[in-house]
Order: sequence, then structure tokens, then C-alpha cells
Amino acid sequence: MLHIGIDAGGTSTRATVVTTAGECVGYAQGSGGNPISSGKQKASAAVISAAETALKRADSTLADVGKIVLAMAGSSAGESGEWLSDPLLSHGFSGTLSWESDLLATYFSGVFSSFGYAVVSGTGAAVIRVENGRIASTTDGLGWLLGDLGSGFWIGHHVALAVMAEIDGRGPATTLTPRLLDMLKVSSDGPYVQGRPATLPRLITELYGLRPVELAQFAPLAFAESRDDVARGILDEAGTLLARSVVTAHTSPGPLVIGGSVLAQSGRLADAFAAHLAEHDITPEIVRVSDGAVGSAVLALRRLGVEITSDVFHTVTTTVAQQR
Amino acid sequence: MLHIGIDAGGTSTRATVVTTAGECVGYAQGSGGNPISSGKQKASAAVISAAETALKRADSTLADVGKIVLAMAGSSAGESGEWLSDPLLSHGFSGTLSWESDLLATYFSGVFSSFGYAVVSGTGAAVIRVENGRIASTTDGLGWLLGDLGSGFWIGHHVALAVMAEIDGRGPATTLTPRLLDMLKVSSDGPYVQGRPATLPRLITELYGLRPVELAQFAPLAFAESRDDVARGILDEAGTLLARSVVTAHTSPGPLVIGGSVLAQSGRLADAFAAHLAEHDITPEIVRVSDGAVGSAVLALRRLGVEITSDVFHTVTTTVAQQR
Repeated sequence: MLHIGIDAGGTSTRATVVTTAGECVGYAQGSGGNPISSGKQKASAAVISAAETALKRADSTLADVGKIVLAMAGSSAGESGEWLSDPLLSHGFSGTLSWESDLLATYFSGVFSSFGYAVVSGTGAAVIRVENGRIASTTDGLGWLLGDLGSGFWIGHHVALAVMAEIDGRGPATTLTPRLLDMLKVSSDGPYVQGRPATLPRLITELYGLRPVELAQFAPLAFAESRDDVARGILDEAGTLLARSVVTAHTSPGPLVIGGSVLAQSGRLADAFAAHLAEHDITPEIVRVSDGAVGSAVLALRRLGVEITSDVFHTVTTTVAQQR
Repeated sequence: MLHIGIDAGGTSTRATVVTTAGECVGYAQGSGGNPISSGKQKASAAVISAAETALKRADSTLADVGKIVLAMAGSSAGESGEWLSDPLLSHGFSGTLSWESDLLATYFSGVFSSFGYAVVSGTGAAVIRVENGRIASTTDGLGWLLGDLGSGFWIGHHVALAVMAEIDGRGPATTLTPRLLDMLKVSSDGPYVQGRPATLPRLITELYGLRPVELAQFAPLAFAESRDDVARGILDEAGTLLARSVVTAHTSPGPLVIGGSVLAQSGRLADAFAAHLAEHDITPEIVRVSDGAVGSAVLALRRLGVEITSDVFHTVTTTVAQQR
């Protein structure tokens, strides 16, 4: 009997096919599988396509699958998931479908112990504490308007704020300004209108033309301008904010799984993150993961009652790596 | 010959009819006259209705009007104003129409001197420096995503952030939390889901259901909770931020006109504002105004070449007050 862990993100989806013993026999990647960002129809098509492509490697079909776990953001709201269960049924799937948090899938991509922490900072940012293999607490993950402190959105937003502050005469000069103007193809020349450089209304029009979360696209500018004090200040604060969320979630020592692009690179942000944790005497074993592919498969096995020993976890991680 | 100053806001519009000598002979108020927030058709109908109602008090029509000045936010973009000039023409107006900034109308509602400052904090926030009767510099006024520091939006947003921080375990307890939950009719009872109180997803749904600027509706909670440390901290910071924008705009001493609801009330915010100015040795003559009604009429007279002496300004202010 085969089982599938699906890590369904906003921009890409990963399907990992495993045996009950934890051996990965198929893997495939597809387009965005989150029904909120992609729409239900596109999301279900992406999930099923990724699952069937992965199964093909094992010469199997959805009829051979016992358990599917779908890990995604906002999974608690997804429990009324006919958008996916109905199409799966019509594609021959007669097993059981369960929903899990993408944060928990990230966690189990890094460790198999039933107690620990995960911090994920991509476009958004959140920290979970895991107890008995389940999420015992969540910190932040509140979205761009109400939280996501230290996320890609937060960094990109602060890049834009720093540039506006400089142009507005309220903030220090920063090399982020020419970089952002370049990126948005806004010329820095032109007359003054009502005491403001012509750049400003053009920049305002460009920035308000984006969906707020799209400000995350400016986060790489902060990482690139590593000699600029303003950029360094933004990275320091982002790292500290992410560490603060870990401190809030922390009860007793456990491993810390790190996911998402923001904490993936070494440098000032990662240093500030580690320094703030150390100030609070938190020095966990750290495991970096690239996504929730391994973890979604582990969650499928856990749902089946398989005990995830060190050996089983080792089997999953090494065979997934081979199939990728 | 009669002239009209129109102060066209997002929620209401004021039309002030004056003689060339500055005597107000008609005044009326109407619905929102800003084409961006109300749409062009509703906005032009509101402006013309307010103008005609005000003219009726002087037994006159648009045919008797020489000059109309329309003061509104984003006035520099409004210069291609067929949305208003065409309907005015078809209502018998054959004079000239000019556009002005609502910030400048606020300024000239308070003082007639051609040098000085205005700070306006309503839903948004901006500071202008006026030289030779024109806007020489603008600080902030960059909208909710990029600025408006110390505005009603800023305060309301920080109320929401403080409540989220408390519920998330990252911030101190605040009486803003029960007040906000009450206001949004979100029950504070319920089970925990993935380590979060059931309140949280409900609150998130409510808050993301608003347009961001609508968070300004929570600003009054900060003013109401005058014994709460968190609320006081928000007001202190808002007052300081508004003062900082004044400091940025400041070159040499001049009167300071204060408009908008946020700085209209005495208390901590106003105290923090004054204290920060005093720290920078800025102790201007302060004039508080309720809107741009007087100033839009003054701008109409200035456009006609009328010299605004102390006597003329006195005539405008006293007769507008009588007509209201």
C-alpha cells in the first residue's frame, strides 16, 4: 500500500509517495496547490497532477493509495475540503484524506522527535511549538496587516518605508533608494511638484499598484545592500523579531527546524536571530529544511499509526533525497 | 461678482460663496466630493449641489459666479478635471475653475500670512510648509501603506496590532482587547485550535475583511482607554510622529495651523506633540481649524489677485461663521 504526503504551497506543490515502511518510491513537483491563492479548481488540478506524476514513477495510480495527507497554510479552515476530495474520488482514489498544517510538515521535514519548534519565514512568518507530534502553540503567522514580523513581506515593506522616508526628508540616505527606483523603473529625475520630487508620486503609484504581500519582492534588496546601514538595520530587526517569536513559543529545550527563504541565508539577519536567542539562553539543535516534502510524508505515516523511529525517519529523508 | 471656495473631502463637501471683498453670502455642506473616493459622477453632483444650495442663500446661480476654487486631496492629479468642469458648464457656470490642495485650504482657514505651516491628521496625516502663499514642502501624506504616521489610520492600526500581540502572547495585556472584541462583536470564548484561542481566527477574518484605511475606526478606542498603558503609548508615539513631520518641514518660525480630528482633542497625544516640538525649540502660534471652508474661499480671492489683509481675512472668517 502506498501513501502520499502533499506539501501544497501558494506557488508550488510537492507530492511524496511512500510505502508504509517509509521508503519514498515517487516524487513530483507541480504548480500552486493552495485553494485560497490559486482558486479551488486550479489548486485541485495541481495537487492531483503532482500526485499522479509521482505515482507514475512507482508504476501506480491513485487507486493504489491508502492515505493522503495534504499540508497547507490555513489547514484548519480546509477541513471542509470537497474542493479536493471530490476530484480525488473521480480520479480513482478510495483511501482517506487528512489535512495538516504546512508548518507542521516543515517541522517533520527536519526532525522526527515529537517535541520541538519550527520557525518559517517566507512571504509570511510564524513559529510553532510541537508537543506529542501536534501543534501546541502558534506565534505570529497573522498576515501582512497584523503581523508576519521578520517575514519577506516585513523586510520588503521596510525597504519601501526607508526609501519613502529618505525621499520625504525624514530618513537617512540609503543605497536602497536607487536600487528600488531601478527595480520599479522609476526615473529619479524631474521637477518638484508641491514641494516634492516628481519621483515620489510615481513611486507611490507603483507601490500602491501592488498587492501588499507583493512588497516581499523587495526583500532581496536589503540582503544585497550589505554595506548600507539602513539595509543592515532592517535585517537586524527582522532577525530579532523572528527570534522574539521563538522566545514567545519557547517552554523547554527542543530542536528548532528552520524553513523559508528569509532564514536560509547566512549573514546579518541570521546572526541577529542567533544572538537574540542566545541572550535568552536558547541554543537549540538547528535543522534547516527547504520545504515540507519529507514532513508531509512523515505526517501521512503518523496518521496511519506508524511509529517514526530514527530508522524510519532516516529511510524517508534519504529516499526522498534520491527521488528528487 | 460672486466666487466660491469648495472644500471637497472624502465624506463631506463645503461650498463657501464670497464677494470680491471677502464677505461670505452663502454656505452649504453636502456629501463627499472627492472623485477618487466617491466616483466622478457622485463627486461632481455633490460639488454642484453644495454650490447651488450655497448660492440660493444669496439669491444667485452659477451664472453669477466668476471664480471657483476646488480644494481637495491629490489636487495636482485633478488638473485634468473635465469630470467637474463639463457638468459646471452645463449648469450655467461660465467663469474659471482652479484646483488647490486641501492642505493649503486648511492652512488658509487659520491664518492669512503667506508663510507658515499646517499639520493635518485625520484618516491620513501630512504637514506642509507655505511660502509666498504656496506649498513649498510637503512631509508625509504618503497613505496608509507608506506613511500617514500619527494619523487616524496609524492609531487604529496600532490598536489592532496591540490586541493581536496580546492574544498572540507577544504583547502586554491591554484594555483595548475587550474594547476591540466588543466593537467587532467577536466573542472572547471558545476552544483552542492549533494552540490559538478561537478568538484569533475570528478577529483575523473581521480585520482582513476591512479596507485597510477603515482601521482608522479603531482610533477612538485609544483615546477612550486613557488609563491603559498600551493605549497611552500609542497616543504618545502618534503625537511624537506628527511633531517629527513638523520638525522635518520646519525652516524658520511661522504660525502652525492644526486640522483634522486626531489633533483636535486635548490630552496625551496633543501633549506629546507639543513636547516634541518644544524639544526642538519650535513654539509657534497655533491656530486650530475644523476644515478648509474659509481657506478655500481665501484661495479663490487670492487667485483673483485680491490682497488678503488682516481686515479681509477677518471679514471672511466672521461672515463664514455667521452663515454656518
